[in-house]
Amino acid sequence: MNLILLNPNDLTDDGHVCITDPRRLTHLRDVHRSSPGDLLTVGVQGGNMGKALLKELTAERAYFQVESLNEPPPAPLPVHLVLALPRPRMLARTLEHVTALGVKEITLLHTKRVEKSYWQSPELRPDKIYQHLILGLEQARDTQLPSVILSKGFRPFLQQQLPALLNQRRGLVAHPGMANACPRGISDPTLLLVGPEGGFIAWEVEQLMLAGCEGMHLGPRILRVETAVTALLSRLF
Amino acid sequence: MNLILLNPNDLTDDGHVCITDPRRLTHLRDVHRSSPGDLLTVGVQGGNMGKALLKELTAERAYFQVESLNEPPPAPLPVHLVLALPRPRMLARTLEHVTALGVKEITLLHTKRVEKSYWQSPELRPDKIYQHLILGLEQARDTQLPSVILSKGFRPFLQQQLPALLNQRRGLVAHPGMANACPRGISDPTLLLVGPEGGFIAWEVEQLMLAGCEGMHLGPRILRVETAVTALLSRLF
Repeated sequence: MNLILLNPNDLTDDGHVCITDPRRLTHLRDVHRSSPGDLLTVGVQGGNMGKALLKELTAERAYFQVESLNEPPPAPLPVHLVLALPRPRMLARTLEHVTALGVKEITLLHTKRVEKSYWQSPELRPDKIYQHLILGLEQARDTQLPSVILSKGFRPFLQQQLPALLNQRRGLVAHPGMANACPRGISDPTLLLVGPEGGFIAWEVEQLMLAGCEGMHLGPRILRVETAVTALLSRLF
Repeated sequence: MNLILLNPNDLTDDGHVCITDPRRLTHLRDVHRSSPGDLLTVGVQGGNMGKALLKELTAERAYFQVESLNEPPPAPLPVHLVLALPRPRMLARTLEHVTALGVKEITLLHTKRVEKSYWQSPELRPDKIYQHLILGLEQARDTQLPSVILSKGFRPFLQQQLPALLNQRRGLVAHPGMANACPRGISDPTLLLVGPEGGFIAWEVEQLMLAGCEGMHLGPRILRVETAVTALLSRLF
């Protein structure tokens, strides 16, 4: 928690901050080892960041006086990430990595090699997803929550969502064996598509190419989804 | 396990392969769902990769006939990674990520902000480290085992190891707030130094600069060590 991320409920009417949830209280006490008088980094969800003075820390609440709130959050990455739904534990970690890296738009997609049971995982509950996004923001010192869309069919995605997503975006499909290497240091608005652990099937890659995407690869090594996504985002932007 | 990594004990005198350890047997049966007649990707530790025909799979052993062994492993990254010792669970995952990405030389370093108790963790036992390196190689389809050196003092590292490590290598210290951004797509032999969760202290950065390293940063976001290391390696090489 490199940033105390505040939601509207944490703000009192007179411009103070009052935190009461056990997770952040425990973190302030046991990890930050904070005590009254400490100046801590805060940020308002969807808004600016700044400093707040800790006035009181008890088992029930942390009470702050806001000193400044004029630093904008870091710039987002110009990317919409379409990720074949990974297995639940990998999903949790990947959501934290990509949120910390600055991704703001995420679509989780069903493809042929995604196990259908993954769509039943409790990790896909909105509150669980929200929790991982918050951890990513707190880690990276960011306030802008990503949006996560679940797209449970490949054909409907192809026909109903992909054309709009490719409007004004460069579509890049990460897939082993493609002719071109992953581009470096681009700034174009991008739609980045990453397949599941076993990869997209040939037909899926073909359809994505027909829709206007370019294929690219990260080299001969086969990486886990969470490693691959971080490596792709870092090389691209 | 995208590659069945063979150690010398797995090779029989007549050029066959016999695997008897429960981990790989379970993986072959439950994840690969292999059966006799399957052609699988194998590689000899430190040597070439190729294909082997599964002849027999029982609860006690998997018996293969080697069909080919003439593909060299993928090229290593030209980097020696010096990593401030992360907390044990993060270490385990980071070793797998960086091995999969092709790092072959790793030094785990003590710095001021590394908790001393981490050096007592069972994750630092040679057999545990070896296990994570093997998982990284099996994931990425590689056969060349990285070396891992434990360097338990910053001053001795600075005086006794760093000068030799910087001989013919470009030293790069990843640290927030440095003037230059992380370079992209270099091919120089590199010594990459990455601090602990709270960063190097100012004195440590100063000493590394005096020894001839360059500072560089990955942007304003604070990343977890495992995310940062993957992002750095992918952007650099």
